[in-house]
Amino acid sequence: MAILHEPQVELIAWTGFAKPEGYPWTTDSERDGERLIEFAGRMCYQSWDNPSGRTNREYIQNLLKQGHLSVLEHAQASFAISGISRSCSHELVRHRHFSFSQLSQRYVAEDEANFVEPSVIASDPRTHAIFVEAVEAARQAYIRLNELLEEKFSHIPSRVERRKLARQAARAVLPNATETKLVMTGNLRAWRHFLRLRASRHAEAEIRKVALLIYQKLLELAPAVFSDFQVTCGADGVTELITPYTAD
Amino acid sequence: MAILHEPQVELIAWTGFAKPEGYPWTTDSERDGERLIEFAGRMCYQSWDNPSGRTNREYIQNLLKQGHLSVLEHAQASFAISGISRSCSHELVRHRHFSFSQLSQRYVAEDEANFVEPSVIASDPRTHAIFVEAVEAARQAYIRLNELLEEKFSHIPSRVERRKLARQAARAVLPNATETKLVMTGNLRAWRHFLRLRASRHAEAEIRKVALLIYQKLLELAPAVFSDFQVTCGADGVTELITPYTAD
Amino acid sequence: MAILHEPQVELIAWTGFAKPEGYPWTTDSERDGERLIEFAGRMCYQSWDNPSGRTNREYIQNLLKQGHLSVLEHAQASFAISGISRSCSHELVRHRHFSFSQLSQRYVAEDEANFVEPSVIASDPRTHAIFVEAVEAARQAYIRLNELLEEKFSHIPSRVERRKLARQAARAVLPNATETKLVMTGNLRAWRHFLRLRASRHAEAEIRKVALLIYQKLLELAPAVFSDFQVTCGADGVTELITPYTAD
Amino acid sequence: MAILHEPQVELIAWTGFAKPEGYPWTTDSERDGERLIEFAGRMCYQSWDNPSGRTNREYIQNLLKQGHLSVLEHAQASFAISGISRSCSHELVRHRHFSFSQLSQRYVAEDEANFVEPSVIASDPRTHAIFVEAVEAARQAYIRLNELLEEKFSHIPSRVERRKLARQAARAVLPNATETKLVMTGNLRAWRHFLRLRASRHAEAEIRKVALLIYQKLLELAPAVFSDFQVTCGADGVTELITPYTAD
Repeated sequence: MAILHEPQVELIAWTGFAKPEGYPWTTDSERDGERLIEFAGRMCYQSWDNPSGRTNREYIQNLLKQGHLSVLEHAQASFAISGISRSCSHELVRHRHFSFSQLSQRYVAEDEANFVEPSVIASDPRTHAIFVEAVEAARQAYIRLNELLEEKFSHIPSRVERRKLARQAARAVLPNATETKLVMTGNLRAWRHFLRLRASRHAEAEIRKVALLIYQKLLELAPAVFSDFQVTCGADGVTELITPYTAD
Repeated sequence: MAILHEPQVELIAWTGFAKPEGYPWTTDSERDGERLIEFAGRMCYQSWDNPSGRTNREYIQNLLKQGHLSVLEHAQASFAISGISRSCSHELVRHRHFSFSQLSQRYVAEDEANFVEPSVIASDPRTHAIFVEAVEAARQAYIRLNELLEEKFSHIPSRVERRKLARQAARAVLPNATETKLVMTGNLRAWRHFLRLRASRHAEAEIRKVALLIYQKLLELAPAVFSDFQVTCGADGVTELITPYTAD
Repeated sequence: MAILHEPQVELIAWTGFAKPEGYPWTTDSERDGERLIEFAGRMCYQSWDNPSGRTNREYIQNLLKQGHLSVLEHAQASFAISGISRSCSHELVRHRHFSFSQLSQRYVAEDEANFVEPSVIASDPRTHAIFVEAVEAARQAYIRLNELLEEKFSHIPSRVERRKLARQAARAVLPNATETKLVMTGNLRAWRHFLRLRASRHAEAEIRKVALLIYQKLLELAPAVFSDFQVTCGADGVTELITPYTAD
Repeated sequence: MAILHEPQVELIAWTGFAKPEGYPWTTDSERDGERLIEFAGRMCYQSWDNPSGRTNREYIQNLLKQGHLSVLEHAQASFAISGISRSCSHELVRHRHFSFSQLSQRYVAEDEANFVEPSVIASDPRTHAIFVEAVEAARQAYIRLNELLEEKFSHIPSRVERRKLARQAARAVLPNATETKLVMTGNLRAWRHFLRLRASRHAEAEIRKVALLIYQKLLELAPAVFSDFQVTCGADGVTELITPYTAD
């Protein structure tokens, strides 16, 4: 058991692109996702030549400006996310344009689970003490419930089934703070929408941390697609992303 | 604070239908959703006359048999669901073809929260005692954290904002068992898919209860659309829905 | 065969609502969709009492202002649409948050098909003459192809199958202008998005007509939900909808 | 202008994967999509060790057998498709889990458009002659309408706008057979669903050709994910895909 304070976000998958034969087009970007986006956009208008010499970055910035965002859907990014709480993942999985594979509390034992402590609780010894005591008590209750339930289900031949029945009930006492891990995949249009909502000052503090970390990775992956976002820090210390564009 | 054992499911909204002028068609069903489904199906083939005298029920059963399920999407049903745990809602909101409005732990105080006890825990005095003690301890920790955090944020002028900042952090110690409430809306195709997955014996016990209750309401609302499902009870006491049809 | 100039749009289905027991809430709207939306919104905050005496309309207008649009997803509306071209339906079915049941050219004979003439073509006798001649020639080619193909497939015992094989090939010569009919269902959030895109001056002329007709029906159905849209007519005679809100 | 008989399908984008640090797992596949799928599946159960020495192929085949298909959503594939008709694309874009960027008849001139002739029409000189005459007549009508409409809109200063207004009306006479081109992106679960429906003998002949070509490319890209599909040819000469698995 450990008390965690920062989410871990790793970019683990993204779109590779191979320009097909027969399209009289070249571009200046070396990033596959951005090249695919320009290719798909030019498919709509068959504008394979580029007389004005527009760069890939200019092309994509024009898409953002025009709100022609469906073209961004062709490129995707996947993240492995850990060090987040179950209340954070409950918010994450509300985003219906994404795909998720998440640690299952029905199948995985949480005897040694970690717990994610909100910063505002960690920063005060009084609240920190309450938090640590509460999550440790919950963990002990979970372990004890799990033992008694496995005993109760000892007549079930399958060990996997027996454990599942015990764990899915015992987890009832685990707190929102329990760490979870997941893979989250979405296209770049969906990620833009996610950042607008979840890296905003109106978002909950933990998911905003996650969104800001994801933004850093996405900005490296496809700088033109996220070039309109600006990191700003308010007088109250809240860091958020803002953009002049409102379309999703 | 109460300990809850059964979910509450109420059908609160469903589709009304008014046959438009100019379509030479009548049907024998008096249920709006089923009439709309037949109307939409007949639109595809312009089969407004019905020479073989097929009933609405036969028409819909044929759709199920053919796997022509997109027609079922025109009719919807909404449920108000309460008495379920946050671990159950975490599974519910994974269904991306539905719409949800759920009690927010960021905005709503949980000082008097109820807790949902799994049946297998309730049925043994030893596990029941551990459960009750654990959730009550969590509730007390939540109340104390909330007080200290509201104090910490006392410089913030907006009471709504101050409370939100306290509650969204304090909820970290609330258990999975904490009761939540929500409105869940979906079309009848999506509900069929939901029932196939969540009223199955492979589903977790609490969500299976919810799914079986929803099934009862849907069967009243649109009996032809759910007529293939059979309630069965296994030797191990597990009640589930089964259907001969496999398409979603 | 007829030449059509105006789409037909009929509201055929919408959401009915029955307030469940046990929620200490009343509202002043008599429209079911709007009552459901307020109910779902209040579920999130458990704000069942209404000390400030906010009307349902004010409640919904605040949702629009805050961009809290997921609540609008619980109420839906279905339209029967006819008198539109296949190029228009090709644009309609790109909207992925809707459900569609459309006349199938594989199954339905188009010998007596109608054709939708664009206004700008109809308004000039020269273009009108070209259009009428072209669609009539296409129809004759379709009829002749269909006959020859049915002959070719005369060895196939099933009349339905034989006809399908002939029609799905013969339709290759039918023009974009060929009339189609469909049922289109979506929730009110999706319809707002649709109106923003398709009732805009940037939309194609025919789909803009459809969107403006749908808007009129939606405004009657749920006036508060669409109260921010304004019909405006430009100096160039283009009628469009505009709204101060940008979120979808 | 050319008469086309075969669709062109090229795989242009797919998912690359980089295993993150800190997960004690290796696998035997060298295909990124398949490695990502196994990684995401193991995230759910934290089954990073592999005591039974299951291969990646065995792991994925077990997912298919269990119907645990959400894990397949993390890997995607994009195709550039050309040589297909507008009636085929009208069917393609009905698949709502995909992203599309399609040649716009509002913006692109179709003076030199190609036309896709159904095989059953091409195989008989009588039907072939009718087809060729019909599409050439439609093309000539389009060219003439376009000229007259550009004249009509000659007062509009923007050349792009003027052309758009002419083309979006003139296309009304273009036939279903008119060639279109598009980029289509989806995840591997969506592609499996697409193949089940569109490579089936019940599918329309042209889209079945497209689906079978896509299948060949997907089988190369991720053989384990599509290993259950079998190409079969019926006594009537219809080639289709079949699979023992029914879940989507």
